[in-house]
Amino acid sequence: MPIRPGDRVLFYIDPKRRFVQVIREGGILGTDKGFVRHEEVIGREIGESVMTSKGVRVHLLRPLPVDFLASMKRATQVIYPKDVSLIAYLAGVTEGSKVLEGGVGTGHVTAVLAYLVGESGKVYAVDIDETKLRKAAENLERLGLAKRVVFVKRDVREGVDERDFDASILDIPDPWNAIKAVYDSLKLGSPLVAFLPTVNQVEKTVTSMRELFVDIHVYEVLLREYIVSEEGTRPSPRMTGHTGYIVFGRKILP
Amino acid sequence: MPIRPGDRVLFYIDPKRRFVQVIREGGILGTDKGFVRHEEVIGREIGESVMTSKGVRVHLLRPLPVDFLASMKRATQVIYPKDVSLIAYLAGVTEGSKVLEGGVGTGHVTAVLAYLVGESGKVYAVDIDETKLRKAAENLERLGLAKRVVFVKRDVREGVDERDFDASILDIPDPWNAIKAVYDSLKLGSPLVAFLPTVNQVEKTVTSMRELFVDIHVYEVLLREYIVSEEGTRPSPRMTGHTGYIVFGRKILP
Amino acid sequence: MPIRPGDRVLFYIDPKRRFVQVIREGGILGTDKGFVRHEEVIGREIGESVMTSKGVRVHLLRPLPVDFLASMKRATQVIYPKDVSLIAYLAGVTEGSKVLEGGVGTGHVTAVLAYLVGESGKVYAVDIDETKLRKAAENLERLGLAKRVVFVKRDVREGVDERDFDASILDIPDPWNAIKAVYDSLKLGSPLVAFLPTVNQVEKTVTSMRELFVDIHVYEVLLREYIVSEEGTRPSPRMTGHTGYIVFGRKILP
Amino acid sequence: MPIRPGDRVLFYIDPKRRFVQVIREGGILGTDKGFVRHEEVIGREIGESVMTSKGVRVHLLRPLPVDFLASMKRATQVIYPKDVSLIAYLAGVTEGSKVLEGGVGTGHVTAVLAYLVGESGKVYAVDIDETKLRKAAENLERLGLAKRVVFVKRDVREGVDERDFDASILDIPDPWNAIKAVYDSLKLGSPLVAFLPTVNQVEKTVTSMRELFVDIHVYEVLLREYIVSEEGTRPSPRMTGHTGYIVFGRKILP
Repeated sequence: MPIRPGDRVLFYIDPKRRFVQVIREGGILGTDKGFVRHEEVIGREIGESVMTSKGVRVHLLRPLPVDFLASMKRATQVIYPKDVSLIAYLAGVTEGSKVLEGGVGTGHVTAVLAYLVGESGKVYAVDIDETKLRKAAENLERLGLAKRVVFVKRDVREGVDERDFDASILDIPDPWNAIKAVYDSLKLGSPLVAFLPTVNQVEKTVTSMRELFVDIHVYEVLLREYIVSEEGTRPSPRMTGHTGYIVFGRKILP
Repeated sequence: MPIRPGDRVLFYIDPKRRFVQVIREGGILGTDKGFVRHEEVIGREIGESVMTSKGVRVHLLRPLPVDFLASMKRATQVIYPKDVSLIAYLAGVTEGSKVLEGGVGTGHVTAVLAYLVGESGKVYAVDIDETKLRKAAENLERLGLAKRVVFVKRDVREGVDERDFDASILDIPDPWNAIKAVYDSLKLGSPLVAFLPTVNQVEKTVTSMRELFVDIHVYEVLLREYIVSEEGTRPSPRMTGHTGYIVFGRKILP
Repeated sequence: MPIRPGDRVLFYIDPKRRFVQVIREGGILGTDKGFVRHEEVIGREIGESVMTSKGVRVHLLRPLPVDFLASMKRATQVIYPKDVSLIAYLAGVTEGSKVLEGGVGTGHVTAVLAYLVGESGKVYAVDIDETKLRKAAENLERLGLAKRVVFVKRDVREGVDERDFDASILDIPDPWNAIKAVYDSLKLGSPLVAFLPTVNQVEKTVTSMRELFVDIHVYEVLLREYIVSEEGTRPSPRMTGHTGYIVFGRKILP
Repeated sequence: MPIRPGDRVLFYIDPKRRFVQVIREGGILGTDKGFVRHEEVIGREIGESVMTSKGVRVHLLRPLPVDFLASMKRATQVIYPKDVSLIAYLAGVTEGSKVLEGGVGTGHVTAVLAYLVGESGKVYAVDIDETKLRKAAENLERLGLAKRVVFVKRDVREGVDERDFDASILDIPDPWNAIKAVYDSLKLGSPLVAFLPTVNQVEKTVTSMRELFVDIHVYEVLLREYIVSEEGTRPSPRMTGHTGYIVFGRKILP
C-alpha cells in the first residue's frame, strides 16, 4: 500500500537520526544530512528508501512505539523505552483497557498506553500542569493517538471522577499522597505501577501501599546495548546509569 | 462482578505462591499452605481474599501477563518477563497485530503476544517439535488465549505460507538460518526480534540481517529487584545473571 | 623450590573445590572427589598436580587473596572478593600501611589487608564480639598472616588508643556512630571506607561524614562472570544480586 | 609532618577537579577555579585546606592509587580504577612481588602495581611502542614510583629474558599470541591476568590458555556510583557501560 498524505512515516537515517512525520503535500524533512521533500515519498512503499539532498540514504519505515520519543517535543524529563516497556507489561495494558495515568510528563508513556489500549480502550491522562497537558496532547496528535486519550487537568492526588480503571500508572513526585485516590478509582485486583527516581520515594510509596495492595514489588531495569562490528562484539561504552525505580502492586480489599 | 465457573483467577499467597486456575464446580487449589475449594471462591469478587484449610490468606486476583509463567507447565527453558516485555514492546505488538513466532518453547511468549493482539489479531506459533506445540497449546488454552493462536508444525527456517506479518519473534538456536524465510513473510518495514543466549549466536544473527534489515540493535536486560523492609532498603541478593540477548531489526528493500 | 611441611598450598580441583591447607607430616585433604595425603605433595613443585584416591586431578597452587575465603571457617556474613578488592584499593593499603579495621566478621577483609600491608605494616582488627575475634584470628593463623594483625576486643564506636592510621575500614551496622572515633584515629588526609548492605545505612553514614571528610563517594560493584564453552560465550546465569555499598571519604580538618 | 618541597600532594577541589603535583619552590597549580602558589602550601599539613586566587577551597591530601589517573598525561585508552583494583587483587600483587606487565598504555596499571609491590618488588613494564614507554615512565616519575619499574622496549609476544615472575598482567590486543612467552616467564602456579575489550578476544585468549593454565575465569566489573543529596538517594545517571573483560588463570605443568 503506497504512502499517502496523512500517513505517519519514520524517516530512518541512522540510530541518532530518526524522525516521525505526518506526510503532507509540500511537507519537507530537514536534517543535517540534507532534506527530503514529502512529495518524493508519496506513492512509495514502507520499506523503500529515498536519498536526501546530500545523497544520504533514508529508509521509510512504519513508526513503532520505540520511535515515539523521537517524534516528541520534550517538555520535561522522559521515561525511557526500557522502563515504559516494563511498566506497560506489568500493568497488563491491552485492547480495551481503561487506564489512569497520573502525571503525563511529555506524553511518552501516554502514547505507549494509547497504542496498546486500541480503538476500544481509553487512557485518562491527568496532570495539574496545563502546559504539560497541552504539549502531551500535541505529541499524541502527531502520533495519531490523541483520540484514545482523555486529557484531564486535575491534581490526581485529589482523585478523579472516573472509576473502574483496569490499571493505573503514576509518574508524580509523591505517589504516596495519591495512593488513596488511585485506590478508589481502580477495579479490585487491578495493578498500580509507579515510576520513581529515588530510593526514598520508593520507600514512602511502598509503605503507603502496604494495606491496600498485595504482590508489591520494586524493580529497576538496566539496559545494555551491544556493538557487533568487525573489531568484535562488546557492550556499548555508553549506558544510562539510572532513570528510576518501578513499583508495582495490586488492589485488594484491605 | 462476582467470580463464576469458567473464570480465570489468580490465587495469590506470596511472591512464590501464585496460581492461575480456571474456576469450576468441585475444583480445588492445593498448596503447601493448605487447600482452597473453588466453591468458596464462586460468588466472591476479585480483590477479596479467602483462607486456605491451614488458615493462610489467599488473595483472589485477575491474572496479568506477569502471572502467565506461574500457570504454565514448563516443557523447556522459558523466556523471562524482563525479556518478554521488551520483546513485545520492540515488536510493537498491539490490537490487530498479525505476529509470526518461530520457536514456541513453553508458550510463554506466545501467551503474551496473544494477550496483546486482542480479538482481531493473530499469532502464528511455528515449531518443528510437536510435543512443544501441544504443551504450548495446552498452556494457552488454560489462559483462555488459545483461540488467538494458530499452531503450525513446521520448520520456520523453511518458511511459512502466511504472508504480511506485522512482526516476527524468533526463539530458535540458529535464527540466521531462518532470516531469509522470515524476511519473506514480513511486511516491508516490520520488525524482527530474536532472543539468543550466547554472544556467538548474536554475531551470526546480526551479520545475516545486515542487508535485509536496518535499525539493527542488540540489547540485554538486567532486572534488579529491591527489598523494602524495616531493616532498610536494598537490592535483592538474588538476581538472574543472564538469560539472553535481544536482537532487533526492521525489514527493508535491500 | 619443592613443597615442604609448613607450606601453605592451594589444592585446586575445580572452581567449587579449592582448599588451602598447611602441609604437615601425616596431613590429609579429604574431598567428595577422594583424598590426598600430604606426603604425596611434599617434595613436589607448586604447579604440579597429583591424583586423589578416586583418580581426580588436583593442582597444587600458591594461595592468592582470591582463595582466602575458601580456607576460612565462616562465622558470619562475609565480604566478597568483588568488594574486598575495591575496598583495599580505595583505602590505598600497601607495604607498611597501618590500618584500622572496625568489625572483623570472618576475617576475610582482615586477611586481605594483612596480605597487602606486608611485613612492616599492621592491621588493628577491632571487634566487640570475642567469638568473632577468635575465629578471625584462627583464620588468619591458618593463612600465616596472623602476626601482621593486632586483634583488639573493643567497641570501635568508643574509639581505640592507637593513632595515626593510614586507612580505616568499617564493617559494622552503624558506622555513623563510629565516625568521630575513627576520625580521631586517622592521619589527616587518610581514607575511611565503610561497607554497608542498605541504602539507609549509606545515607546516615554519608551524612555523618559531611563535615569531617571530603571526596565522599558511594559505590556498588556488580560482578559478572562469563562462560566460554563450545556452545558459545555468555554471562553466567548465576550472579550475586547485591552484597553492599562501599562508602569512601578522606579526613580533613573541618 | 608539614608539607615540604618534593612532596606529592593531591589538590582536591571537587570530584572533577583533583590534581596531583610535586611541590616545589615557585610552583603553581592553575585551575579554572583559580590558582594556588605552592609556597602557600609548604609548611601546611596534609588535611588542611587553602584558598585559590578565586576564593575556592582546595583540600591538601595524600595521593592514593585512586588519584593516579588524575595525575597522568594520557597517551592512550586507560584502564579504569574499577578494573585495575580487581586486576591487582586477582594477581595477588603485594610487597616484594615481581610482576610482568605486557602493554603499558598510559602507565596507570603500572603505577598501581608499582605502588603495591613496595620497595622490594619490581614491575617489568614491556611495550613495543617507545613513545608509550616514555610517557608511562614520565607518569611514574611524577608519582615517585619510577624506581620500582623496569621499562623494557620489546614485543612481549616474543618473550622477555627475565624469569620467575609472581604475576603477569597483559593489556595487548592479542594476548593469545603472548601466552606461550608469558607462560615461560611465570613461576609455576602464578597468575596471568589479561584485560580485553571484546568478547572475541576473550574467547581466543581463554582457548589459548586451556592447557597451560587452570582456574580460568572471565569477569566483568560494573561499577555504579550513588548520589546522596537532599532530594534523596539514587544511582548516578552516568555510568560507564563497558570498559573490558578480565581473564584470569594460573600456570600449571601441562
